[in-house]
Amino acid sequence: MSSTFGNFLKVTTFGESHGGAVGAVIDGLPANIPLTEGKIQIQLNRRRPGQSDITTPRSEADTVKILSGTENGLTLGTPVTFVVENLDQRPGDYSSAAAAPRPSHADYTYTMKYGITASSGGGRASARETIGRVTAGSAAEIFLLEKFGADIVAFVSSVGSITAPIIDDLEGLTREAVDKHFVRCPDQKSAEAMERLIREVKSDGDSIGGIVTCVCRNVPAGWGEPVFDKLEALLAQAMMSIPAAKGFEVGAGFASAAMRGSEHNDIFVAKDGRLGTATNRSGGIQGGISNGEPIIFRVAFKPTATIGKEQVTADYIGNETILKPTGRHDPCVVPRAVPVVEAMAALVLGDMALGQMGR
Amino acid sequence: MSSTFGNFLKVTTFGESHGGAVGAVIDGLPANIPLTEGKIQIQLNRRRPGQSDITTPRSEADTVKILSGTENGLTLGTPVTFVVENLDQRPGDYSSAAAAPRPSHADYTYTMKYGITASSGGGRASARETIGRVTAGSAAEIFLLEKFGADIVAFVSSVGSITAPIIDDLEGLTREAVDKHFVRCPDQKSAEAMERLIREVKSDGDSIGGIVTCVCRNVPAGWGEPVFDKLEALLAQAMMSIPAAKGFEVGAGFASAAMRGSEHNDIFVAKDGRLGTATNRSGGIQGGISNGEPIIFRVAFKPTATIGKEQVTADYIGNETILKPTGRHDPCVVPRAVPVVEAMAALVLGDMALGQMGR
Amino acid sequence: MSSTFGNFLKVTTFGESHGGAVGAVIDGLPANIPLTEGKIQIQLNRRRPGQSDITTPRSEADTVKILSGTENGLTLGTPVTFVVENLDQRPGDYSSAAAAPRPSHADYTYTMKYGITASSGGGRASARETIGRVTAGSAAEIFLLEKFGADIVAFVSSVGSITAPIIDDLEGLTREAVDKHFVRCPDQKSAEAMERLIREVKSDGDSIGGIVTCVCRNVPAGWGEPVFDKLEALLAQAMMSIPAAKGFEVGAGFASAAMRGSEHNDIFVAKDGRLGTATNRSGGIQGGISNGEPIIFRVAFKPTATIGKEQVTADYIGNETILKPTGRHDPCVVPRAVPVVEAMAALVLGDMALGQMGR
Amino acid sequence: MSSTFGNFLKVTTFGESHGGAVGAVIDGLPANIPLTEGKIQIQLNRRRPGQSDITTPRSEADTVKILSGTENGLTLGTPVTFVVENLDQRPGDYSSAAAAPRPSHADYTYTMKYGITASSGGGRASARETIGRVTAGSAAEIFLLEKFGADIVAFVSSVGSITAPIIDDLEGLTREAVDKHFVRCPDQKSAEAMERLIREVKSDGDSIGGIVTCVCRNVPAGWGEPVFDKLEALLAQAMMSIPAAKGFEVGAGFASAAMRGSEHNDIFVAKDGRLGTATNRSGGIQGGISNGEPIIFRVAFKPTATIGKEQVTADYIGNETILKPTGRHDPCVVPRAVPVVEAMAALVLGDMALGQMGR
Repeated sequence: MSSTFGNFLKVTTFGESHGGAVGAVIDGLPANIPLTEGKIQIQLNRRRPGQSDITTPRSEADTVKILSGTENGLTLGTPVTFVVENLDQRPGDYSSAAAAPRPSHADYTYTMKYGITASSGGGRASARETIGRVTAGSAAEIFLLEKFGADIVAFVSSVGSITAPIIDDLEGLTREAVDKHFVRCPDQKSAEAMERLIREVKSDGDSIGGIVTCVCRNVPAGWGEPVFDKLEALLAQAMMSIPAAKGFEVGAGFASAAMRGSEHNDIFVAKDGRLGTATNRSGGIQGGISNGEPIIFRVAFKPTATIGKEQVTADYIGNETILKPTGRHDPCVVPRAVPVVEAMAALVLGDMALGQMGR
Repeated sequence: MSSTFGNFLKVTTFGESHGGAVGAVIDGLPANIPLTEGKIQIQLNRRRPGQSDITTPRSEADTVKILSGTENGLTLGTPVTFVVENLDQRPGDYSSAAAAPRPSHADYTYTMKYGITASSGGGRASARETIGRVTAGSAAEIFLLEKFGADIVAFVSSVGSITAPIIDDLEGLTREAVDKHFVRCPDQKSAEAMERLIREVKSDGDSIGGIVTCVCRNVPAGWGEPVFDKLEALLAQAMMSIPAAKGFEVGAGFASAAMRGSEHNDIFVAKDGRLGTATNRSGGIQGGISNGEPIIFRVAFKPTATIGKEQVTADYIGNETILKPTGRHDPCVVPRAVPVVEAMAALVLGDMALGQMGR
Repeated sequence: MSSTFGNFLKVTTFGESHGGAVGAVIDGLPANIPLTEGKIQIQLNRRRPGQSDITTPRSEADTVKILSGTENGLTLGTPVTFVVENLDQRPGDYSSAAAAPRPSHADYTYTMKYGITASSGGGRASARETIGRVTAGSAAEIFLLEKFGADIVAFVSSVGSITAPIIDDLEGLTREAVDKHFVRCPDQKSAEAMERLIREVKSDGDSIGGIVTCVCRNVPAGWGEPVFDKLEALLAQAMMSIPAAKGFEVGAGFASAAMRGSEHNDIFVAKDGRLGTATNRSGGIQGGISNGEPIIFRVAFKPTATIGKEQVTADYIGNETILKPTGRHDPCVVPRAVPVVEAMAALVLGDMALGQMGR
Repeated sequence: MSSTFGNFLKVTTFGESHGGAVGAVIDGLPANIPLTEGKIQIQLNRRRPGQSDITTPRSEADTVKILSGTENGLTLGTPVTFVVENLDQRPGDYSSAAAAPRPSHADYTYTMKYGITASSGGGRASARETIGRVTAGSAAEIFLLEKFGADIVAFVSSVGSITAPIIDDLEGLTREAVDKHFVRCPDQKSAEAMERLIREVKSDGDSIGGIVTCVCRNVPAGWGEPVFDKLEALLAQAMMSIPAAKGFEVGAGFASAAMRGSEHNDIFVAKDGRLGTATNRSGGIQGGISNGEPIIFRVAFKPTATIGKEQVTADYIGNETILKPTGRHDPCVVPRAVPVVEAMAALVLGDMALGQMGR
């Protein structure tokens, strides 16, 4: 179990979906950063289930409380602790899971890791763990904005095979624009098509994957630590640690594999007093270090493994069995992944900011 | 500068292309693993420039020496140190770089990170740094094979827009089959097309990107550390820390975003005494932990930034300038990235193996 | 700020004396360890102020709550979070501190570290931070006892110049025997003399230092990680990180400097089925690794810097000023340091236990 | 095996006494620090055996070579690798050790840790491992002197029961003064008495312990990381990780336990433009952070376990056996520990310097 992330800005998340609370401790934030529960709550609300009639209908309040590290609305430079109570707390029910592992869930692998009888740790594979990430990530976002004017906006760029057109004005994109439609795609036409697809998938008792695109703006040049803690490497780790993430790419990403150097290279140009690049196929990172251009990356999420259909699978002993659907599920988690992607980006950038401030 | 990787199996690489030597120290390998210079040399030779007439013609011998950690061909359980002398050692020449940063190189970002006059660290962004990774990774590979029978084979699956068909028998694929053609694509027809493309690109004074696919076999179920050190998260960090990597995906990867849950879920079936899955869209990892199926991932590499063409760009002050090509370059580094991908995969798996052995 | 300790068993403490709560998160405890709030409360009560009329009269309840990581009284293998509310919560009053730094307090150094105006972090230098250590350490103690039968007992061996005679039966010493007298010296005659000295010091408005001796029993041979994480090195770090600690020694300690090798060497003898040593000048550790004998070390604590006397000192600008005593203070903190020493020992041993279980 | 030390300035040592080489990699040193083999060699020569007729007569040259991280005598900001060849290389001879573990050596504990048959790791418990520490520590010393004007001087303050009087002018003490007599006690009368004692002990075939005192000057206020990486805590870990160290104390140390607060408190006074303290019982550290006064600490070393006398002990099976002396030994290692203590102090201070530079 590795519940701690970061070298200079360290976050530790804790809590199971069926326990008393979930949350996080973040250590390394400088003093005098304005930080209140209200600011953290905003992103928590964006992560919350039940934001529309097509997401999970559980509507826990998910209210954050700050237990330490602030005074009079300012950070003290000490560990900040965020706690969110589990109101909907139920004792873990592993009876059905014990009979047959759910396909493409963590049931089987956790059992193999922690031993056959243990329900150990499984609760940490739950999406509810990401609450801790969002609280700590929001604090990191505030630090980045206050100290560097840097900000982060993520949005849904694909649901299933519906892909939004390239957003022209990534530098001007706001979270308000993203949130106009609850699928969190700022292109309204695509958003509506995505909604239709999600409703169709839902009525089929199925689920669907999608892609989140993220842009980080006003990140100063010079962040990232060669050799192993390159900025893109830590972003990749951060994103691929989010439940259901299956792919990560930065800048031109996989498409760059099909390009020639003369096409891909970002030529330098003068830009209001600094050196910039005419194009941004590098995605704002060269040689593992930010170059001052917007950092752009994409994260692919698989469809939720929990579906409303029967599945013919095997139980733990290997006997064929039919797994029946139980309860409700979220047909497409990607809109709710948006604040989680933003949070993890903020944690990586905050970490690298502190690393560079040491020079 | 973060030159150390791993939690339980820690590797530190060192050395600049223009210094005396490059290499690595690996700490955490158990005792009594058979480890000789000859075994390490095999992968170093696969990484070496000058393996064909279309790669970089520098042909340094790159001979590895083990300085510590073994006796009579066996590891002692102490740090193993690998050193490879730089025969072609030249004092760093930063005169042209000082005038104008090379587009999509690390020149500009390193300067912004370490200060305007310093040539600091730039040598660590060189591909030569990967020698240390290959030496330590080869040692980790031997550990994995000896203790668990696990092995790793990577190969080139795309060069530019030429993509090899899906390899049916990933479980039977050998490095010998991969190395039959120097582009390291085991599908001979694709390999020949790739070679033609690389020769064309080369004669244009250009470069081309590509994709490396990697399969890790006989990895026991249970490896990987939730929450932040999920197996796919550490693989992502490891791969994205390789110079020129722009994308990472595991299992169905980005394609999974377009799938429905009922399509993507890997149904369980009995497989010679263990529980396996009928399909492997998860790529051998569920919930961050290996499930006993082959681990399959892909890494996208951009085209080399160094090209044989003039580039109209800006100097450090922002004035337009023409950057002329200097010397020779490697039109496609992807075949040589194959052993580096294998090495980084071995370092991650070795780390997670030790993590799990602690349970 | 480095609020995280441990390699394999990681504890993060949080909270300021004037904030909402203090506590800790401990990550790495195996599943199925019996762990309840009641068990943790026992050591918290031993650490609590106001246990006798001569300690700090603040009598906060210091009631622990477990927020995560357990179910039905058993650990889940996930992070366990302990929270203790600050009932006596008052906004930080830095007005007098702002005028003049208190001699031998952290006022001046924290100001120099975090900047002149900031009250940053100072709350973390408070003794109240040790609550988090005691909660997490108690959990580690339970793990050590359950899995290995190992236990830890610390006691006060000196107060001022009163030093208890060597305890003959360290293997049979119990916490009950230690707690018979509130100064926590199991030798009753010494305990009474210590009490008299503490009362005398108190009536003088002064404070007094002391020494805590700790014995760890039934620790298996083989714990400790050469080279830098030797068992005695991590114990030293752990103990010297306790507020007011000024010295650490293991086995014969400083006295060994005056010995000859022929006097100091611990000769091996057969001991019920294992190899033991006839003497234990090594304090249970040789070459950084436990040898199966009781681990014995001592920690020296300076007298509390807060005293009830006027002190002629300088303000931040350097002008001479008279610092008047404010409020009440604890004339001798050493009895209350006993459970803190035990907690830190448990965290180190738990960490090394997990490290060794990986082999 | 934990061969890496430091958070921001990371050093990894490698090598066994019977292998090809020993050395270290240090990562995190800023660029443009003047660093040459000649400067490192000075401290290596002070650590070398055979400096007088009463130390170990092995006289290996111990010549350091820098393999990476510098160019034209300046650091590059990349990992610096130091290698010292083992000229006197002999295959490990464990035949006698295999029969009976040497009392108070690491033979038994290493065997219990790594398994009964393995000679694993034992070579890392050898004093020769400290060569790596001295090379990296010397580099850290140069960084501290160049950037902060900080320097470190250690000396022998006790051998056996001969203790030098308090050195009045710790701020003016030089290494030249320390090295005037080969026992490295700057008080000549004490040095001569110590020499006589060592000769007597040697002629008895015995060994003797001692104490090293260390002073670090011009360390700026503000270094050290609360809570667990307090400056005294990391110094304690660093010193207690040196082979044969049994005790550590800072400032008044164990003596402070017998003091009253009114005696121990260091009153503030104005000192050439900064706030200083009239006394220095804190040893330059308050609340885990440097206060600008000299940092003073002491390290107790036990007598070498290897002696020239027969010892009646038990073999691995538990049968009584007589262990005969083999070869020559060093009757008092404390003079040679002086540069090792300085090196470890420099590594801790360099680490904390980088930590504080990040604020």
